[in-house]
Formats: sequence, C-alpha cells, structure tokens
Amino acid sequence: MNKKGTLIVLSGFSGVGKNTIITQVLAQRPEIYYSVSFTTRAPREGEVDGVNYNFVTREDFQRRIDRGEFLEYAEYNGNFYGTSLAVIRQKLDQGTDVLLEIEVQGAAKVLEKMPEAVSLFIVPPSFEELSRRLHARGTDSEETIQKRLAIARVEAREVKNYDYIIVNDTVEGAVEEFFAILTAERCRKDRRIHLVEGV
Amino acid sequence: MNKKGTLIVLSGFSGVGKNTIITQVLAQRPEIYYSVSFTTRAPREGEVDGVNYNFVTREDFQRRIDRGEFLEYAEYNGNFYGTSLAVIRQKLDQGTDVLLEIEVQGAAKVLEKMPEAVSLFIVPPSFEELSRRLHARGTDSEETIQKRLAIARVEAREVKNYDYIIVNDTVEGAVEEFFAILTAERCRKDRRIHLVEGV
Repeated sequence: MNKKGTLIVLSGFSGVGKNTIITQVLAQRPEIYYSVSFTTRAPREGEVDGVNYNFVTREDFQRRIDRGEFLEYAEYNGNFYGTSLAVIRQKLDQGTDVLLEIEVQGAAKVLEKMPEAVSLFIVPPSFEELSRRLHARGTDSEETIQKRLAIARVEAREVKNYDYIIVNDTVEGAVEEFFAILTAERCRKDRRIHLVEGV
Repeated sequence: MNKKGTLIVLSGFSGVGKNTIITQVLAQRPEIYYSVSFTTRAPREGEVDGVNYNFVTREDFQRRIDRGEFLEYAEYNGNFYGTSLAVIRQKLDQGTDVLLEIEVQGAAKVLEKMPEAVSLFIVPPSFEELSRRLHARGTDSEETIQKRLAIARVEAREVKNYDYIIVNDTVEGAVEEFFAILTAERCRKDRRIHLVEGV
C-alpha cells in the first residue's frame, strides 16, 4: 500500500526564516528531495543557481510556460516563480518525500491539483518580530521592507488554507515541529489502516 | 485562545505493549495527566491501585454508575472498566494534556462526547508478533490468549475510527511517534490561526 512519498508544501512570510529552516531540514534529512523552483528574480548574495532556485530569464520562463512545464507559476513582487510538475511526480512515485517551498498563490494552485499534499505555513512569533527580522537582514531598502510587510498582511488571510502553522521562534523549535508533522502524517489512519485490514 | 489541554485517547490490542509505552511517555513528560480508569478486574502482578487502575468491587462500580460518575463504562472480557469525567474536564480546562487509555467500545463513547480529542490506536508490526508477545508475557493461559487474539480481530474493525495508528515495533519508535503526533496536533491550523488574525 501507500508507499508514495509525501508532498510537503511550505510557505511563510518573506523574512520569517524559511531558508534557514529548509537548510536545517535538508541537512538532517538529505533523503528529502527539495523541489527547486524556477524564478526570473535576481539571485541574492549566497544563493546558488540550481540549489536555491533555477534562475532564468523572462524569455526562458515564458518558453516553459508555453510548453506547459509548470505545475503552477505566479508573479510575485514583479518576478515570476514556477514549479516543474514532472520531477515532483517522479520523486513521489519513487517513494521520496518532496519539499516544495512556494508562495501562497502558487501553493493554492498546487493544493488544488494535489490535495493529498501536506501544507505548512511558517509564521513569526509576532508581526513586530517579522519587521525586526526584515530590517536585521539588511538586504532590502525600507521601501522594499514595507512592501514585504504589506504583502505579509495580505498573505495572512490565506493561512487558513494550510494544514499546519509552524511558529519560527527558534530555528531548532521550528525544525522540530516540521519533523513532528512529517512523522505524524505518516501515522495518519488512512496511511496505515492496511496494517489491520483482513486479519 | 486555545489554551485548553489536549485529550489523547489511546487504545490498542491486548498484549501490544500499551503499558510499556505509557510508562515511557509519562516518564519523559510527567506534566501529562494520566487518567486512571476504574475497573473490577483483579490487579496483575506489579499493578498498583490508583496508578494503573482504581481497582474496585462490582458493588462499588455499580454505585458509581448510579451516581452518573462515568464518562463511559464498558464490560470487557467479563470485567467492567469506567472513566471519570469530572477530573478529565478539570485538567483540560487547566491547560493540562490528559492521556486516557481505554478499550475500543469506551473510546467510541468518549470520542462521541469529546470529538476534539486526538485518538491513537497502537498496533503490532503483525498479528503473528502479537501472538508471540502474548505468549512471551507468560501471564495468561492458552485459552485466554486465544480469546485475546479473537477480541483483537474484532477490534481491528474499529481502528478506522481513530485519527492515528502507532506501530509498536520498538518502544522507542512508538514513543517517538506518540510525541510527534502530540506536537503536530499543537501545530494544526485551527489551534494557531489566531496568531495571524487581525494583523
């Protein structure tokens, strides 16, 4: 029965610390496949093409849209982001868990097409803390930060569509919650009822 | 918001190792309140009155039924088992998690009255292993063991009513699954959505 991998859809406000959590998760469980999205935005310092994102031009992105390559794609803050379906399906069929980090519009589309996915939204302990973290990151102008906070307030309305909310108070705590959810999902009745059927 | 404790309803086949798991869980998290059931059955070796069960006579048990003390009570293998409602309610209201070990008939009644409870069913890796464990325990006659296995086969049909299935392959693994479920349940959207409301 049910040997398919679990698709984990992960979203969170900009600046909440998603990348740090994902890095920790993959370091502790390298067997999880991290689905690398395509984007037209410029790499930030330290970001590596093919690892953090597949960084492509707008023309390249448009060709992929035309070929129907994307499970979903969306424009966010002036840039395009897209997710390749074929690779995810293949990994899940092989029994590999797939982690997909994606913003809320994209997540909604993925969850519509793959309702069996487990969806997680990462929140800060408070919005004040989110603002503090965005400023502490020091990579964005005040204008960009205010834009991100405004987007976060809009995104907050969509959190109700997720299965779980992870609070990123400490990274260790958030990573622990991530793994606990993954373990609990494997214990769900539907995934294990075959163990007591026909006895 | 939601500061109430979680009611954890735990069932499992006779001989699956429930007591060992519960002992480990309570040792690691003494803040969990273990709801001690009332029973008319005789204590097994090592069982302590007021710790494993409140061991009472049939007459005493009947008086408690008449007083409406029980959240549920049921007859199982010729003995009565019952759960006191008042104490559980009080603990949950104080924010304490309550662990209630209960057989399937009783669990069904509790879940009907308290649908917000999280229900877990512990299974062995296989029914052959369950039979092996019952024999290894050395406390029951062959007749009793066969009776327990027959009951387990009937109970197996009710496992579909539980939220989660824990596999007791190793005690450590089963306890880890228990705690993961408890953590994941605290992360459920409904329990945390207040964190992003009204921002």
